[in-house]
Amino acid sequence: MNPHPKLFQFERHATDGAARAGAFQTAHGPLLTPIYAPVGTQATVKALTPRQVREVGASLVLANTYHLYLRPGDEVIAALGGLHAFMGWDGPMLTDSGGFQVFSLGGQKGKKPLRTIDDDGVTFRSYIDGSRHRFTPERVVEIQQNLGADVAMVLDECAPPDDYDYNTRALRRTHAWAERCHAAHTRADQALFGIVQGGVFPELRAQSAEFLRGLDFPGYAIGGLSVGETKTQMHAMLDVTVPLLPADKPRYLMGVGTPEDLVEGVARGIDIFDCVLPTRVARNGQALLRDGKFNMRNARFATDPAPLDERCTCYTCRHFSRAYLRHLLVAKEMLVATLLSIHNLHTMLTIIHEIRAAILAGEFAAYRAAFWEARATSRA
Amino acid sequence: MNPHPKLFQFERHATDGAARAGAFQTAHGPLLTPIYAPVGTQATVKALTPRQVREVGASLVLANTYHLYLRPGDEVIAALGGLHAFMGWDGPMLTDSGGFQVFSLGGQKGKKPLRTIDDDGVTFRSYIDGSRHRFTPERVVEIQQNLGADVAMVLDECAPPDDYDYNTRALRRTHAWAERCHAAHTRADQALFGIVQGGVFPELRAQSAEFLRGLDFPGYAIGGLSVGETKTQMHAMLDVTVPLLPADKPRYLMGVGTPEDLVEGVARGIDIFDCVLPTRVARNGQALLRDGKFNMRNARFATDPAPLDERCTCYTCRHFSRAYLRHLLVAKEMLVATLLSIHNLHTMLTIIHEIRAAILAGEFAAYRAAFWEARATSRA
Repeated sequence: MNPHPKLFQFERHATDGAARAGAFQTAHGPLLTPIYAPVGTQATVKALTPRQVREVGASLVLANTYHLYLRPGDEVIAALGGLHAFMGWDGPMLTDSGGFQVFSLGGQKGKKPLRTIDDDGVTFRSYIDGSRHRFTPERVVEIQQNLGADVAMVLDECAPPDDYDYNTRALRRTHAWAERCHAAHTRADQALFGIVQGGVFPELRAQSAEFLRGLDFPGYAIGGLSVGETKTQMHAMLDVTVPLLPADKPRYLMGVGTPEDLVEGVARGIDIFDCVLPTRVARNGQALLRDGKFNMRNARFATDPAPLDERCTCYTCRHFSRAYLRHLLVAKEMLVATLLSIHNLHTMLTIIHEIRAAILAGEFAAYRAAFWEARATSRA
Repeated sequence: MNPHPKLFQFERHATDGAARAGAFQTAHGPLLTPIYAPVGTQATVKALTPRQVREVGASLVLANTYHLYLRPGDEVIAALGGLHAFMGWDGPMLTDSGGFQVFSLGGQKGKKPLRTIDDDGVTFRSYIDGSRHRFTPERVVEIQQNLGADVAMVLDECAPPDDYDYNTRALRRTHAWAERCHAAHTRADQALFGIVQGGVFPELRAQSAEFLRGLDFPGYAIGGLSVGETKTQMHAMLDVTVPLLPADKPRYLMGVGTPEDLVEGVARGIDIFDCVLPTRVARNGQALLRDGKFNMRNARFATDPAPLDERCTCYTCRHFSRAYLRHLLVAKEMLVATLLSIHNLHTMLTIIHEIRAAILAGEFAAYRAAFWEARATSRA
């Protein structure tokens, strides 16, 4: 390893096919990749203390610009020392641009959209109090600089994945906005990542990757996936996009993160993932296993003394039975959200850590084969 | 200290006036007194992991027989290894008899009571599904033996504190039930405590203490207080009751536990307290301070970088600002219940630990005077 890595340098420790194990240098320490980021939408990974987030093995946490801009406000957070100090997380952090949430406001059929887009930016109403707000590329950079995460994202337009004309138009805007974000960004201890868009269209994805590469971002995200397209389409988009991105920069697949997605994403050269799934389903009483899932409300768990997963080493599995977790869920006790979130995140992070170890050992292909083998057996 | 204490022996390490510092031997280790017990109604101290309960300084946890009998059932818990294993708490535990909850079912004016009492026991309907159930002294002992806490409580009848005739009748029953519980109790690793009743009437309290003393319980509780009477009345009842209880047995003041109550209860010879207050108010956004409280919703905290209490060493105060806690509360994030519960319990436990240290140092009178002095100053 390089003893004096520079900020935002991405060092590859090993590669195995397209898969890479590396380290991305941030102002809050090196981020070892591949990595999976829990989502802390409102400056908290729901139901967990930062210490618990650390203990499940997390090293990167994502927060949402849209939510934090509206409440408590990016200037409030800046005055309190930035997002790390505010939420008590001293490791690497990433904020999205807020674009995805704002564009989602237009999504429901038959309802008046809550946002309007023009070439300069997007105007939207607050979901909290209905007040009017405007995001432009420059404003989104300013907000993220106030929040002060280690990685910030450009503003992009998220189009429905299979509408070619829409994606063509959206891509023009996304690229213009990427240039403006790049020009507006000044914070030296924060890396601004570009975002490749283009729906499910290989030529648009290629065009986007080429364009963004020209702006020389310290890292690249692939956006607009896991929003309704098939896995085959997702993989095809990765296959066309990743080879066009610089090998010496980290690659982040936004909002994607089932166990299968980690294995298949890494196999296609992805370094960073995030997903709300493990914590969201935990709050609904669902436990993720390596090869399936449990709805803890199921009566068959009522007297089950076993831990969720015999092989799991998380706090929940070391101390509590399925029967206890079911009791907490049925009794509507908050602790169940905490204990299932711990287990679900630990499961995801264990998989990504195993993947990294496999790449370093030159055994990723075998790991991937065994992963799918185990799932086939478990389904049989 | 005695190097080989026997189970349920109560050793007094120091006394200071009526205040005592001691150790009560349980099958899960010595319980150092005076002590304050967080309440884990449904086999969980709400919003906290057992590790967090331990870290705030708790050594004794209370659980509710009534709730656990109804859900998941005492036999389910017994089959899973008992309450300690079920909820992952390896320190001393106490279960109440369920009587208080059952008698509370008759409390609302103009509504048909959900329970009927006779000399043999009490019949009630489940708040979960309306099914009929019956508690007798023998049944309540059996349930608590199944749960397996270190300390169990006799079944008692809780009367309105200021109704003399009702208290006279209830006391007859309470005493008969205490005898029956005492006779029915067989579990060698569990101590059964008697409960003194008698409302706000000194002669009834004295009569109850004398009667129960004759049954030679390994510990004595004082029940039926903090249910509407004044502090002056509560203190008068302690002043008449405590001197009639054996000096070499622990004394437990049930359901009582503000900071003032701890200081004044210990001054009157109480060793054990419990109260839901610190965790209940935490879930409503209230932070307990040593000399007051904060409603964290208050807008004045929105940009306040200070911890809840500069002098507090709890996890919450070491890592988070008032502004962050207010943000979590306003944003309806579960984490605020966890962080405020940690702080509130830590505050209560710090006070009780200070009280113990003051007794051991022979400085309890000075501690008590300083406690009231600080409150007088803070209110001024």
